[in-house]
Amino acid sequence: MKTLRNKFVLLAITLVGLTTAYAQNSLPSWNDGPAKKAITEFVAKVTKEGSSDFVPPEERIATFDNDGTLWCEQPLYFQLLFALDRVKALAPQHPEWKTKEPFASLLKGDVKGALAGGEHAMLEIIIVTHAGMTTAEFETIVADWIATAKHPKFKRPYTECVYQPMVELLAYLRANGFKTFIVSGGGIEFMRPWTEKVYGIPPEQVVGSSIKTKYEMRDGKPVLMRLPEMNFIDDNTGKPVGINSYIGRRPIAAFGNSDGDQQMLEWTQAGDGARLCMLVLHDDAKREYAYGPAQGLPDTKVGTFPQALYDKAKKQGWTVISMKDDWKTIFAFEKN
Amino acid sequence: MKTLRNKFVLLAITLVGLTTAYAQNSLPSWNDGPAKKAITEFVAKVTKEGSSDFVPPEERIATFDNDGTLWCEQPLYFQLLFALDRVKALAPQHPEWKTKEPFASLLKGDVKGALAGGEHAMLEIIIVTHAGMTTAEFETIVADWIATAKHPKFKRPYTECVYQPMVELLAYLRANGFKTFIVSGGGIEFMRPWTEKVYGIPPEQVVGSSIKTKYEMRDGKPVLMRLPEMNFIDDNTGKPVGINSYIGRRPIAAFGNSDGDQQMLEWTQAGDGARLCMLVLHDDAKREYAYGPAQGLPDTKVGTFPQALYDKAKKQGWTVISMKDDWKTIFAFEKN
Repeated sequence: MKTLRNKFVLLAITLVGLTTAYAQNSLPSWNDGPAKKAITEFVAKVTKEGSSDFVPPEERIATFDNDGTLWCEQPLYFQLLFALDRVKALAPQHPEWKTKEPFASLLKGDVKGALAGGEHAMLEIIIVTHAGMTTAEFETIVADWIATAKHPKFKRPYTECVYQPMVELLAYLRANGFKTFIVSGGGIEFMRPWTEKVYGIPPEQVVGSSIKTKYEMRDGKPVLMRLPEMNFIDDNTGKPVGINSYIGRRPIAAFGNSDGDQQMLEWTQAGDGARLCMLVLHDDAKREYAYGPAQGLPDTKVGTFPQALYDKAKKQGWTVISMKDDWKTIFAFEKN
Repeated sequence: MKTLRNKFVLLAITLVGLTTAYAQNSLPSWNDGPAKKAITEFVAKVTKEGSSDFVPPEERIATFDNDGTLWCEQPLYFQLLFALDRVKALAPQHPEWKTKEPFASLLKGDVKGALAGGEHAMLEIIIVTHAGMTTAEFETIVADWIATAKHPKFKRPYTECVYQPMVELLAYLRANGFKTFIVSGGGIEFMRPWTEKVYGIPPEQVVGSSIKTKYEMRDGKPVLMRLPEMNFIDDNTGKPVGINSYIGRRPIAAFGNSDGDQQMLEWTQAGDGARLCMLVLHDDAKREYAYGPAQGLPDTKVGTFPQALYDKAKKQGWTVISMKDDWKTIFAFEKN
């Protein structure tokens, strides 16, 4: 048994070594440039046994924001578009919504008006669309929506609006012994039904915002009811808290695209040894969207990348990924 | 690249197949009997491709309670013994404790008196021993204690007071493609510093109770401060909540030893397909402890296994593991 296992381990190490050599070519949607170079040099460094930068595989934790980092977040966060679709679907059961904000505006198609009520309006929308059902029921609702809904601009399922270079990066890191995690401000149970299929990230490696749940017996069968109460907001200073709570290890690489990711990158960088911190800059209005407002891009209020964050990135040695310059392909469907 | 990966996958599958055959012999500390049989039959069933009970590897989630299931929990939960040692270590900085309960009793060695204050007393002890420092500082405190403190009866480090049959079971399940998780009422950050070394369970697969933390800058470096406020209690109905929150998938196998594990076993069993639910019964006063009070064992109030749970186990088809009858060896140090 012992000998067999040793042989297996040896074999696995050899094969990982070989795949590392091949992996240089496994980022085909990345243009040669500073971003791709930062990635491949970092990976070469931390995987080289005997090097002072070597990191054992179990500590190769990489965390990724989702909205705007792994998939598109315009014209609105997709989870918000999901909530709007849910409000429409539920409206027949709620005649009172016709005159009650934020629902009245929403049902008239006036999203801006609905969200004028700020956090309170948003919370009301979340409660009616995300709570009051079991976790299993919510999973089905999300899975059904994600299988059928289409992005208003790209006319594609939302799960096709994922960034091909980032999907390659996830696979490249995993081929080099990394464990890849999502650490998103989005809802944890909104992501889990599809992240394994789309990103190769299993549910247990998804960290996100959550509402409280309660264990109950219903007709003699246990269920988890989703309650109308926030449990955890995994954004800004919440991201290091979520990383510590769910992963319990500090990442050595972190990827984001907005000021909601700043603390995750700070926390990642503050550890000992080599670190890779990257921010995606949405500067490609033609193929995706251009917003920021770093470098004078327009401020859409979704996924805000202020100039101050851009300056901080430069100062800290974080790499800014220009979608326009660094990505040969943005979406896999472009090739069709 | 593609061909190489395919070869690797094929090879890995072949080797997993071979190790499965060997694995029948990899539970040497288990006596042949109904408990060992339940384990090996279940594993054979869910790993057999083409069988109606087959479960793909990514869904082979197994969850283990810690106190009384993976390691000893008498004469008191080890985390409580840790807290008592911390109170003694901190006492010189707190002269007021000499007259203030629950500390006054504790410092006189009267644990029972200290805990007479119930939950409030317990919370006060937790706050002074577990909060008010950074996560990194707490990790060092735990690591130092676990490296030096010894069990009062066995005169061994606490990490040697782990059940050898369960350590073998964890390895056996992993050799069969399972991902093993701890789901414990104990503190998540009390366990993470040592579970990887002792059980082969990495920090990101440890679910437990927690206090809140807060992200702060201290001398320009980010830290997570441990706050004197409970965040989550991972016990009883909290266990399915914790499983859903941290793992996001329902286990197919679950292991516990007390009424705090009942809901985890119910939740596990309520899924579709083959399930393995087991409870460790502490009925070996000679080699470990005998308490329960199932089957007339004394009630120590720690790790309570009431007769009602025993009856429920029989009714539900959960397997009760008798430490006396099913375990050839309890602790690895017995062999010395």
